[in-house]
Amino acid sequence: MSLRLHPDRLLPADPRVRAVARRLYAAVEKLPILSPHGHVDPRLLVDDEPFGDPAALLISPDHYVTRLLHACGVPLGEPGVGRGPLPEADARHAWRRLCEHWAVFGGTPVRYWLEAELAGVFGVTERPSAGSADRIYDRIAARLAEPAYRPRALFERFGIEVLATTDDPCDDLAAHRTLAADPGWTARVVPTFRPDRYLEPGREGWAGAVARLGEVAGTDTSGYDGYLRALEARRRHFIEHGATSADHSHADVRTDPLPRDEAARIYRAALAGTAGPAETTAFRRHMLLETARMSAEDGLVMTLHPAVRRGHHTPTHRRYGPDTGHDIPIRAEFTDALRPLLERYGTAEGFQLVLFTLDETVFSREIAPLAGFYPSVYAGAPWWFLDAPDAIRRFRRAVTETAGFSRTSGFVDDTRAFCSIPARHDMSRRLDCGFLAELVAEHRLEEDEAARIAVELVTVNPRRAFKL
Amino acid sequence: MSLRLHPDRLLPADPRVRAVARRLYAAVEKLPILSPHGHVDPRLLVDDEPFGDPAALLISPDHYVTRLLHACGVPLGEPGVGRGPLPEADARHAWRRLCEHWAVFGGTPVRYWLEAELAGVFGVTERPSAGSADRIYDRIAARLAEPAYRPRALFERFGIEVLATTDDPCDDLAAHRTLAADPGWTARVVPTFRPDRYLEPGREGWAGAVARLGEVAGTDTSGYDGYLRALEARRRHFIEHGATSADHSHADVRTDPLPRDEAARIYRAALAGTAGPAETTAFRRHMLLETARMSAEDGLVMTLHPAVRRGHHTPTHRRYGPDTGHDIPIRAEFTDALRPLLERYGTAEGFQLVLFTLDETVFSREIAPLAGFYPSVYAGAPWWFLDAPDAIRRFRRAVTETAGFSRTSGFVDDTRAFCSIPARHDMSRRLDCGFLAELVAEHRLEEDEAARIAVELVTVNPRRAFKL
Amino acid sequence: MSLRLHPDRLLPADPRVRAVARRLYAAVEKLPILSPHGHVDPRLLVDDEPFGDPAALLISPDHYVTRLLHACGVPLGEPGVGRGPLPEADARHAWRRLCEHWAVFGGTPVRYWLEAELAGVFGVTERPSAGSADRIYDRIAARLAEPAYRPRALFERFGIEVLATTDDPCDDLAAHRTLAADPGWTARVVPTFRPDRYLEPGREGWAGAVARLGEVAGTDTSGYDGYLRALEARRRHFIEHGATSADHSHADVRTDPLPRDEAARIYRAALAGTAGPAETTAFRRHMLLETARMSAEDGLVMTLHPAVRRGHHTPTHRRYGPDTGHDIPIRAEFTDALRPLLERYGTAEGFQLVLFTLDETVFSREIAPLAGFYPSVYAGAPWWFLDAPDAIRRFRRAVTETAGFSRTSGFVDDTRAFCSIPARHDMSRRLDCGFLAELVAEHRLEEDEAARIAVELVTVNPRRAFKL
Repeated sequence: MSLRLHPDRLLPADPRVRAVARRLYAAVEKLPILSPHGHVDPRLLVDDEPFGDPAALLISPDHYVTRLLHACGVPLGEPGVGRGPLPEADARHAWRRLCEHWAVFGGTPVRYWLEAELAGVFGVTERPSAGSADRIYDRIAARLAEPAYRPRALFERFGIEVLATTDDPCDDLAAHRTLAADPGWTARVVPTFRPDRYLEPGREGWAGAVARLGEVAGTDTSGYDGYLRALEARRRHFIEHGATSADHSHADVRTDPLPRDEAARIYRAALAGTAGPAETTAFRRHMLLETARMSAEDGLVMTLHPAVRRGHHTPTHRRYGPDTGHDIPIRAEFTDALRPLLERYGTAEGFQLVLFTLDETVFSREIAPLAGFYPSVYAGAPWWFLDAPDAIRRFRRAVTETAGFSRTSGFVDDTRAFCSIPARHDMSRRLDCGFLAELVAEHRLEEDEAARIAVELVTVNPRRAFKL
Repeated sequence: MSLRLHPDRLLPADPRVRAVARRLYAAVEKLPILSPHGHVDPRLLVDDEPFGDPAALLISPDHYVTRLLHACGVPLGEPGVGRGPLPEADARHAWRRLCEHWAVFGGTPVRYWLEAELAGVFGVTERPSAGSADRIYDRIAARLAEPAYRPRALFERFGIEVLATTDDPCDDLAAHRTLAADPGWTARVVPTFRPDRYLEPGREGWAGAVARLGEVAGTDTSGYDGYLRALEARRRHFIEHGATSADHSHADVRTDPLPRDEAARIYRAALAGTAGPAETTAFRRHMLLETARMSAEDGLVMTLHPAVRRGHHTPTHRRYGPDTGHDIPIRAEFTDALRPLLERYGTAEGFQLVLFTLDETVFSREIAPLAGFYPSVYAGAPWWFLDAPDAIRRFRRAVTETAGFSRTSGFVDDTRAFCSIPARHDMSRRLDCGFLAELVAEHRLEEDEAARIAVELVTVNPRRAFKL
Repeated sequence: MSLRLHPDRLLPADPRVRAVARRLYAAVEKLPILSPHGHVDPRLLVDDEPFGDPAALLISPDHYVTRLLHACGVPLGEPGVGRGPLPEADARHAWRRLCEHWAVFGGTPVRYWLEAELAGVFGVTERPSAGSADRIYDRIAARLAEPAYRPRALFERFGIEVLATTDDPCDDLAAHRTLAADPGWTARVVPTFRPDRYLEPGREGWAGAVARLGEVAGTDTSGYDGYLRALEARRRHFIEHGATSADHSHADVRTDPLPRDEAARIYRAALAGTAGPAETTAFRRHMLLETARMSAEDGLVMTLHPAVRRGHHTPTHRRYGPDTGHDIPIRAEFTDALRPLLERYGTAEGFQLVLFTLDETVFSREIAPLAGFYPSVYAGAPWWFLDAPDAIRRFRRAVTETAGFSRTSGFVDDTRAFCSIPARHDMSRRLDCGFLAELVAEHRLEEDEAARIAVELVTVNPRRAFKL
């Protein structure tokens, strides 16, 4: 069977609506990519080494892919999860497993992205299957050996103008510095401050992390004040290296304040290993409020990605580590949780907050009403499990009527899968154009307005929400 | 750019489905408006004075409008929130701010309503923008000086047959009485009993409110029994003035009963200022059950609008007062919360309960199953943030399959924006006709049945649910 | 008015999409029915007696029907709820009541199923109404007297290949045994183990039930160990009679383990009548984990149908018994609730779990992510209130993007209404074909893949998920 990318894919089926959508899409299709939140390793671009092999590039590190293979009975080790570089025989085996299971990805965005990568990036023309697996492997492997398929060449071909990475506060950001200093490199690759592990005294290894934070920041973190100073110092370090946002992912987004003395007391108790779960949770919530205070002061956009039970299956977590496909969403709540934060900083000059969720119920109930009043709040794009055609449509339908388009963040790809970046942004553009075309077709928006909005969603909106 | 109202706006894009929708809509387009729940001040119609200016009419009092301006950085004072009548320069400035921000309303129902008002009511033919703001202002201002644009003339032109207002239990209802006695006034303008503040001892000013209630009712409210008698007396007063319903909006709809003595004890403690939050909440929940008992006795339809965190941003609330755009929904729960009430009155002759929600998750999960069994329960129309095209469609799709059409309340506009009433009802009619047309197009309903239902939804349904 | 079943009913309205859907549907329309979960009484097929009368067949036992009649003011006794066989005059009266209220079912799946039964099974050609009620009654009554309308003949005509019933663990399964031994009977009719009442010490009659369980199992259930052995023995009995699954419906699906001694202690206390609600709830949750352990050992697929408040209206429950239309859903939660179970058995060889819900919010948030990782977890088909066209579409849209098609269970009819079985399966097939056709029309799936999936959904999927 052949593999082809239909030029009208994801556009509405009705020919009149599709005609409008095509016109809107033509104006945004080629615009540069702004990627304000993702997980590409910047050293990839510094080193510019050839990618290893098709499995290492497209399967092993991508829990979107290995997750569903696992559900279909393929142990995570087969596609190479947690194993590092695979011997060629194993990489081929991993690739074959994916191709044999091609059918189970039907109707998922993973399949859509992979097709776009195979056909659009690597020129594959046949559908993956047990029979075609080796031929496709060979074709991709051959491509990966060519200079045009090295990271920097692909980056340029993808039209990426800004790429934000996600980085540990202790990271020295040498890779970002190298790229910024490289006269042959013109795109912006900016770090993102991701301090989760330093804000959760209940997590394993917190005391060590905080000690190291102190070392890196040149600050004594044996007390609460020094800890705050260390965080502030590292934020400055990130800002000096181009960071525009700080990203947070906790079980919830409560921001109940603690009295300073109580925070300091719990901090010391946590370091001593005597703080209980209620205390460490209270501290984490207090610290989310404190980071908002820092954001109000230093201007880093605060982005929230809450409400996932990470590492749901402990045996798998122990064996394969984090991000291996079994992070499962839970209910989210923003209205009450964020109230202390928004009471203090919700209308503060320069403070910005982008809200993401895996719980769709909050789109119309909480996020849109918040983004429709607070100048600081933006509705973040559908994320992770929701970064998919029907979910993206539900997002626009749930949010637009209350908050319009201008209060949404623009697309974030949030991906580790480098080669999927253009496909993901393209998917979002097609869907937004389709949604706008439907509004035009129902006479809820004039086409000139839809055209303006389509362009703004990939230019003005992400620049504004993430201060790019 | 020109402003025009397309005759097919909001109807389904598919031409075959649209053809059905047009036929259905033609039969309901001109039917009189029944408005069983809203916030128009009846004195508007008694006085019949010309409206002040375009901003005072269309912006300042409407938190649907000022909310999104605020999110876009326009301080609430600029559009005149909480300022009373504005000097002309300020009114023009407020108007300009709206017109400059016209784009941010794209895709929202506010924009849709405003367009319908500008083009449909005032004959404006150009799209609002910084450039056209003053011309449009002048045009509307000129119209407002004409007799045809006074409240009564517009009321008649809008085809309103019944208008329910929302009134404080202490209101003497003089305005309603005047209208009823006016031989030149034929429409029904009926009050709605809205006792929230008298039922929440935890709210500021409760003791004073209850004292005043006693005075107005001629009853001693220093004890619980007198308090109940005062509420009952005021309900009778409302019924004598045409009221058919009592409206309730609390944080939740729990209806756990208290023993009579315990209710009386908390009542006294609350008056003495010694009741704690758990007690005042328990009292409020008990009183929701008590008002159901009163409704079962006196026949006032009970309508519930729960689960909003009112005045989310305290600094704004302090400065600008209530209803200023930052009431944010929270999760709602009806199944368990209403069980005590429904156990007692759910099948009681004449008792009726209309359930509204801002939490869409309860439409299919709780409200439709309740309305599909209890003869007393009606699914209320989508309300507030959900009174918008896509949300209305989601409502019909979520509720119809379990409760059909007959168990839904018919449309409520719930608005303070007088001139938007026809646009809101028209929107609802178009969307219901579109939804019915889709059922016809998929052969889930015959067209003759759809036509009957379309008419009933704007005639039989509201009359039945609200006892009009 | 005439009654007719349009050949394209439920297929997408757009003619291009409908053309694809028709092709897909043509390939599945006539495939045999696999019904892995339902409530048909197997003795119906053993006895093969003529059905009583139209009301007894289509109304009285079906709470989907009587529920909405009740909401419209028809007391449950009129359609014969809880009354057993009705005298002919009463049966006619019940039938008339349904026909008079035909309009209120418009837009509901109940109406759709009834139309399919009337027109498709009984050849009725006029629309039910007050005027046509008696004629239709006579026609159906006449048919029911014919041999072709006896249960076995209909079963064969419906093309049912496998039918799972739902049975009490104490049931001797004599009916199943008789059918299996009948040389003239070729279809599989298998029991399903439904132990709810034995697992909830907080429910009335539990001690007696458990005593009887011991008798039937030949085991002493005066202690916890004997109780477990009795359950295990009855499961073996069911497996010997063809059972492939065990079904569970509790208020929640928490699976928190108790230490063995604590479980034993609560068990004894519950038998003695001294266990409190917290203890009996803890025991029930522990037992859900224990049944998972049994399933991991004996291979019975575990199916979960949680989160309904059964018998919401106590007065009705007392008068008419269970399953009388006022079971009302509540919120569901799976991610945290099932974690103990999935930690232990989520990747265990042969263990399978099918998750159903009436709370749509968990489809995309919890069920799809769980089914998209755990090889044991399947997303169950939309059930009960959600077994309806728009809800089924929402299910596919919510689940497919995360879990694909292969991780869904295939359709379950879950019905007591024998004659509605083919209409229900047919509805599901039409909707799945329509959904697949939309994916094809948007170039998200090739038509050959959609065709394969459409067939698998009614063959491979139910066989796999339910081990048929």
